[in-house]
Amino acid sequence: MNIALAQLNYHIGNFDLNTEKIIQSIQTAKDQKADLIVFAELAIGGYPAKDLLKNRAFIQLCEQHIEQIKAHCKGITCIIGAPIQNKDGEGKGLFNAALVLQDAQVIYAHKKGLLPDYDVFDEYRYFEPGRNFHCVTVNDTKIALTVCEDLWDDDDTNSYVGDFMDELRQENPDLIINIAASPFSYVHFNNRVEVLRRNVIKANCPLIYVNQVGAHTDIIFDGRSLVMNKKGEIVCRLKAFQEDFSTIQIHNLETYQAETVGSEESEISLIHQALILGLKDYFSKSGFKKAVLGLSGGLDSALVAALACEALGSENVLAVLMPSKFSSGHSLKDALDLVTNTGCSHHIVPIQDVADSFEHALSEVFSGMAPGIAEENIQARTRGTLLMAISNKFGHILLNTSNKSESAVGYGTLYGDMAGALCVIGDVYKTQAYELANYINREKEIIPLNTITKAPSAELRPDQKDSDSLPDYGLLDSILYQFIEKEKSAAEIIHLGFDEETVLKISKLLNNAEFKRFQAPPILRVSPKAFGAGRLMPLVAKYPF
Amino acid sequence: MNIALAQLNYHIGNFDLNTEKIIQSIQTAKDQKADLIVFAELAIGGYPAKDLLKNRAFIQLCEQHIEQIKAHCKGITCIIGAPIQNKDGEGKGLFNAALVLQDAQVIYAHKKGLLPDYDVFDEYRYFEPGRNFHCVTVNDTKIALTVCEDLWDDDDTNSYVGDFMDELRQENPDLIINIAASPFSYVHFNNRVEVLRRNVIKANCPLIYVNQVGAHTDIIFDGRSLVMNKKGEIVCRLKAFQEDFSTIQIHNLETYQAETVGSEESEISLIHQALILGLKDYFSKSGFKKAVLGLSGGLDSALVAALACEALGSENVLAVLMPSKFSSGHSLKDALDLVTNTGCSHHIVPIQDVADSFEHALSEVFSGMAPGIAEENIQARTRGTLLMAISNKFGHILLNTSNKSESAVGYGTLYGDMAGALCVIGDVYKTQAYELANYINREKEIIPLNTITKAPSAELRPDQKDSDSLPDYGLLDSILYQFIEKEKSAAEIIHLGFDEETVLKISKLLNNAEFKRFQAPPILRVSPKAFGAGRLMPLVAKYPF
Repeated sequence: MNIALAQLNYHIGNFDLNTEKIIQSIQTAKDQKADLIVFAELAIGGYPAKDLLKNRAFIQLCEQHIEQIKAHCKGITCIIGAPIQNKDGEGKGLFNAALVLQDAQVIYAHKKGLLPDYDVFDEYRYFEPGRNFHCVTVNDTKIALTVCEDLWDDDDTNSYVGDFMDELRQENPDLIINIAASPFSYVHFNNRVEVLRRNVIKANCPLIYVNQVGAHTDIIFDGRSLVMNKKGEIVCRLKAFQEDFSTIQIHNLETYQAETVGSEESEISLIHQALILGLKDYFSKSGFKKAVLGLSGGLDSALVAALACEALGSENVLAVLMPSKFSSGHSLKDALDLVTNTGCSHHIVPIQDVADSFEHALSEVFSGMAPGIAEENIQARTRGTLLMAISNKFGHILLNTSNKSESAVGYGTLYGDMAGALCVIGDVYKTQAYELANYINREKEIIPLNTITKAPSAELRPDQKDSDSLPDYGLLDSILYQFIEKEKSAAEIIHLGFDEETVLKISKLLNNAEFKRFQAPPILRVSPKAFGAGRLMPLVAKYPF
Repeated sequence: MNIALAQLNYHIGNFDLNTEKIIQSIQTAKDQKADLIVFAELAIGGYPAKDLLKNRAFIQLCEQHIEQIKAHCKGITCIIGAPIQNKDGEGKGLFNAALVLQDAQVIYAHKKGLLPDYDVFDEYRYFEPGRNFHCVTVNDTKIALTVCEDLWDDDDTNSYVGDFMDELRQENPDLIINIAASPFSYVHFNNRVEVLRRNVIKANCPLIYVNQVGAHTDIIFDGRSLVMNKKGEIVCRLKAFQEDFSTIQIHNLETYQAETVGSEESEISLIHQALILGLKDYFSKSGFKKAVLGLSGGLDSALVAALACEALGSENVLAVLMPSKFSSGHSLKDALDLVTNTGCSHHIVPIQDVADSFEHALSEVFSGMAPGIAEENIQARTRGTLLMAISNKFGHILLNTSNKSESAVGYGTLYGDMAGALCVIGDVYKTQAYELANYINREKEIIPLNTITKAPSAELRPDQKDSDSLPDYGLLDSILYQFIEKEKSAAEIIHLGFDEETVLKISKLLNNAEFKRFQAPPILRVSPKAFGAGRLMPLVAKYPF
């Protein structure tokens, strides 16, 4: 049996586009004499469609487009993800299903049994779990058909649902198929392969895994669909961060070369590709072409500018340089060097007159008070307002340039440098930002060396340095990683050997900035725990940890 | 048997405060010869604690404080909500439990079986559902002990969990006890009473319902704990929006007077109380005293100023009047009249010079282009920046004054009039805002009549009126209500008889403003469907509905 893997980039709610791609892939599969073609989880309407899944029109459109696709499934079988209604009238009324389309009919529907509800997932909000699991036979091949999380059954974190992989294995499947919408994080691929391999070994049969590819605001799907032989070796792998298509002969897997170990790309290269895709898809899927951002001469904005130029083309990127009286001599030069290196366009808009006019307007109200944080924030908000004015005037999307370390400790001004429609490196720690800058410079200098080597500063008062009020970024990031990615408490982190005073200080900064992050732009997620939908914290709690 | 109902206002993560209140109530119950005292769901750590429930230190603190409270349960039995660990090592590891404390021991733990996962709820994220349900006997009274949603079992929306109320009823309970954290909405009380009544009739026994009271940023608990006799009549009701305490003799309920029908307060009076509590608790629980807001002379800011003065005391409210060249003559007068009526303090900070300096700074970049939205937004963002500067300088919390109608259609400027730490009337439609203003004026004129009667305008260009670009608010709100509260699609709304063109226009405005609302402040929730955590929409989707 020939099986085609179709790894596509779907657009949520864009049924015409998604269906056209799907039908085109079915045609390609037919041309390649495939007997079966496999698409990803929830391919029809896109994922995550969130509360659109509660909209009756959305569900009807899913059904109508399944009808359309079904008509093309003659002489070929198709497995595809879609939400389907529970006609029994009990429960939530919706399943996350893998449909088997054959002879222009839906001949089987596997209903996802394990619904993830951690981190960015909230599938219990929309779906009820499936029950009663059976294999489905296609061309004499008995298939254990599963949807994404279903295969994560063996780690017991959802054991209250039942051990349905056992149920499927009892029927001695010839093949496991898993259709997925499994988001990228820079550590996730190895875990994923491990889980797939455990299932293959337990069931003693090969496995086909088809993932979504593409970004939906914050969530980025990496693709990397694959085929595993029954020894658990990867014998076919589709591209990362791109649409891809491949046809394999499932009964001749022994003739396929197994992937050599150690061929993985570096974390930083994967993060780089993920961010590029995140940027590209945000613009293409929202119908915008051009980006604007503030360029300070510092690392973060240089990095975002370089990424934007790569993703959108430098002709679509406008950098705005907004020096103040506190900007050091090198800042403007470093920013202009980046403009030259990337070829993006730029404006210089000094902010001092505006900042002065704010202070003048407030002189009576602030009378007799020393300048401080309020005045620093006026500078940041003046810049934010200038950038938004340019964004509004020209229809450019404002890119936010905050990194994860500063978001974590609240080192940023709400409505100032925290403004923007999309936060590009908000899930990248400062130490990773340096790695990424060096990676971008791997062939030639794009990000000016001085931008990388100088001491980081917000330049909101004379001779300010980040290190005045924050620990060294190496230490800061290590502690933040324990708090955020590892979800450890302060006591546990201190127990690991970190300095108590530093840990408690960072804990306080982290907790006190929840209210700021609540209003931050969406962040491209590349780690296993990003700020945003995957990390929900109360705002008026007492945090004694 | 005497049973005490303790309706308390908890603070998330503030274990010392919560435990002190709980122990004090136990003492009061003992003084009143109660045999049993009942507290609300998740009383120990507060609700919703969100991802703090994933923090080991938080769970340990819950356990330690249960130990402390347990020691006080001698000569009295106590029922209290707390998260407890599943020591079996399977599943999520956490239950949402109702503990029975007696003789300084935990003698029983009911584990919530129905975990809500719609609107603002996401309990599957944190808890696994309980199984195997039995009654617990206290002083010869067989109690069907349940947690909040458990009683919503009979509507089948979660039927995949099992019919455990049936299991409990088979044991013929003498009494149902339900401990709850059931948020306020202006329609919820009647539904709640209906569900309680259905359970009482089915089980043929009385019921005790103890709810939380208090606000946690967006979510407001209304209290209104109650006792129902076995006919389904309310024979005791605790206060709305306040802590309260009552002791009843459960075996003499026939001697209690049943509540007369029709004694319900008006929706607008309940919304008023909810907003006052929401404001009070936001400030007290975050440790702030003083509020600042921009006062335009229009309805929304006048309403928020009046509410803030009532909740915080007018001595803690600072109104900032920020006229521009587009402000009409009456605006400043109307705003000053409100200042006089409420007694709050105020500053007048004209914005024209700052707005001009922005336009001057951008004159080269904008050269040759006609003024438009960008310039209107500069005015709004100038005001936002001035307010934030005052907030930063004096440590006042900036209150946001956007209403639900304008949030819905994106009629507001991100980082401008959308700025603030808390959005007070963001779940109040414009038509409801008028009702609320009249309600506040019920005894004397607080909100100036001219503010109520004049045509609404953002005053960002000459002679601008809201009605220039939006339908009449009565019509707009009716259509928005169908989209938001009723989750209907455009086709369904048109089918109801609304004008097609208007519905499609509003649909487009609503969808296009998702990106703005993503960065809006938290909103005090008073309706069954507020913007924020209860309504999750994709940002880069295509919305063909």
